[in-house]
Amino acid sequence: MEKLLCGVDIGGTKLSAGIVERDGTVRSKITVYDHTGKTEHQIVDQIAGLIWDLLKKNNLTEQDLEGIGTGFPGHIRYREGVTITTSNLPGFKNFPLRKAIQDYFSIPVKLDNDANAQAFCEYKYGAGRGYSDVIFLTISSGIGAGIILNNKLYRGMTGTAGEFGHTIIDPQSEYECTCGNRGCFMGCACGLTLPQRFRKKIEHGMKTTLPLPPDFDYSHVDGKLIKQGIDSNDPVSLAIADECADYTGTGVYNIFQIFNPPVIILGGGLMNLGDYYFNRIRLKFYELARDMLYDPVQIVKSEAGEDAGLIGAAALLLE
Amino acid sequence: MEKLLCGVDIGGTKLSAGIVERDGTVRSKITVYDHTGKTEHQIVDQIAGLIWDLLKKNNLTEQDLEGIGTGFPGHIRYREGVTITTSNLPGFKNFPLRKAIQDYFSIPVKLDNDANAQAFCEYKYGAGRGYSDVIFLTISSGIGAGIILNNKLYRGMTGTAGEFGHTIIDPQSEYECTCGNRGCFMGCACGLTLPQRFRKKIEHGMKTTLPLPPDFDYSHVDGKLIKQGIDSNDPVSLAIADECADYTGTGVYNIFQIFNPPVIILGGGLMNLGDYYFNRIRLKFYELARDMLYDPVQIVKSEAGEDAGLIGAAALLLE
Repeated sequence: MEKLLCGVDIGGTKLSAGIVERDGTVRSKITVYDHTGKTEHQIVDQIAGLIWDLLKKNNLTEQDLEGIGTGFPGHIRYREGVTITTSNLPGFKNFPLRKAIQDYFSIPVKLDNDANAQAFCEYKYGAGRGYSDVIFLTISSGIGAGIILNNKLYRGMTGTAGEFGHTIIDPQSEYECTCGNRGCFMGCACGLTLPQRFRKKIEHGMKTTLPLPPDFDYSHVDGKLIKQGIDSNDPVSLAIADECADYTGTGVYNIFQIFNPPVIILGGGLMNLGDYYFNRIRLKFYELARDMLYDPVQIVKSEAGEDAGLIGAAALLLE
Repeated sequence: MEKLLCGVDIGGTKLSAGIVERDGTVRSKITVYDHTGKTEHQIVDQIAGLIWDLLKKNNLTEQDLEGIGTGFPGHIRYREGVTITTSNLPGFKNFPLRKAIQDYFSIPVKLDNDANAQAFCEYKYGAGRGYSDVIFLTISSGIGAGIILNNKLYRGMTGTAGEFGHTIIDPQSEYECTCGNRGCFMGCACGLTLPQRFRKKIEHGMKTTLPLPPDFDYSHVDGKLIKQGIDSNDPVSLAIADECADYTGTGVYNIFQIFNPPVIILGGGLMNLGDYYFNRIRLKFYELARDMLYDPVQIVKSEAGEDAGLIGAAALLLE
């Protein structure tokens, strides 16, 4: 019998581990939220515990697993299995995460960036099925990506390839990215810009029709609020969705010119802004690409659901 | 005995064909300049004639050649061997160039974009030797590129991957690219912007110390003039070199974030602006990359000389 997969998705708010079948079905999973205050070694200990619990619960042993695939929310040195940085968890500066997990198990452990894991999930089981080349972009509080070329993840020299979020697309922008540069794709188009954009519009005299309390703190503006604004035709929310979508359309256009890929998949929390936002992204893309589009490029929504990170991490064992 | 290579470099002003040894040495070549007024079929006829002349001159037959590699200055459909467009020659809209050449010969014919051929030359014999992943950027009147990943050219779906020149890097720029978009890398940083930049500076009251005639036509500003200006400390030329270099540094930074490559090679006519320009490109790159640079990236000058296109086209036969 073919072995099962085990995936671990380390997030900034939740930590999931699961037993995944080779067709991408989650057989069993455990999610915890109390890992964020822990040290690196405590988190590794917790991960090992979750996996042992899963094995016991499912009447399995380590030998029933192909290995353990782990997605990490930050930069990693892929070959070495070492984390470089993360903005989602304390610590993990140059931490040998793969080895630390490996020390608990005798089966192979793989470690990759979480966006790479999600991209691989889309390629294997989602909107990228059937393509050998896939570019996956996740737009949420930040912007991450995964590049699949010739049926494999392209990781670059260190393992940090695919940082479209940090490419400069508008150096004259008023928005600075958390990386410190002005006009990154991420600094212009990610969820973190929503509060700034909202406040700026109000300060410039635009009126929102959203029912906000008089002492509303703009730092609480998020995708949910903007979605509510889009649905109720709030001019401020519509203008913000337009701006973010135009930058994302530009980013997608740049990806098209660089990779000439058959498919570009968009995922992440901001996609919950819905079709108004998604259609505007595509509109901007076609406005820029015009007669330079020699073959149809599919620009599609991510199909994998909330377990994409977990399933993708597990699927890395099949790469 | 191992067979020789044959390369053909179709340019906007010159057409070269050559017999190239497997180590990249040009054994024999012929260059003509009278192809530009001809039709596609006349040019193919001329190419066949040049190759036959070379064979005769060198006492060789077709069977002494591995094949014929051809570099074309425009977009092509790689798998089909069909040209899509070129801004350097009349015609060649959806022209089956590979087959047209193939009809004259019994040995294999390869066709690729000229920037891909140059990139492959750098990878095989130039500044990219020893690397499995290389990004090559050629900055002249336009901006072209070649992407080598895992020892092979990455061409994308159609064959048009690597169009960094058309990625948007400053949508608020005053410069429009020939593609029609505002703020492309090419529209901001290529040789074609030099006349506009020069005129704009003079109109804004900057004084050039270059000895220009009173009725000087700014459309004649080119790299040579700007180089002369840099060497004589002309403030207008220095400012233009700074602007172009800053955009190119930004483009190089974007490439770094996307590919995380070990080496980025810069070639093309604008590199003749010299170290002042090249150092400023690197300065801008390091200013943007800062602490996101986890492993050293080599940003180096192209090493292949004027025959890069010819040698690269021939070397495609060894891909």
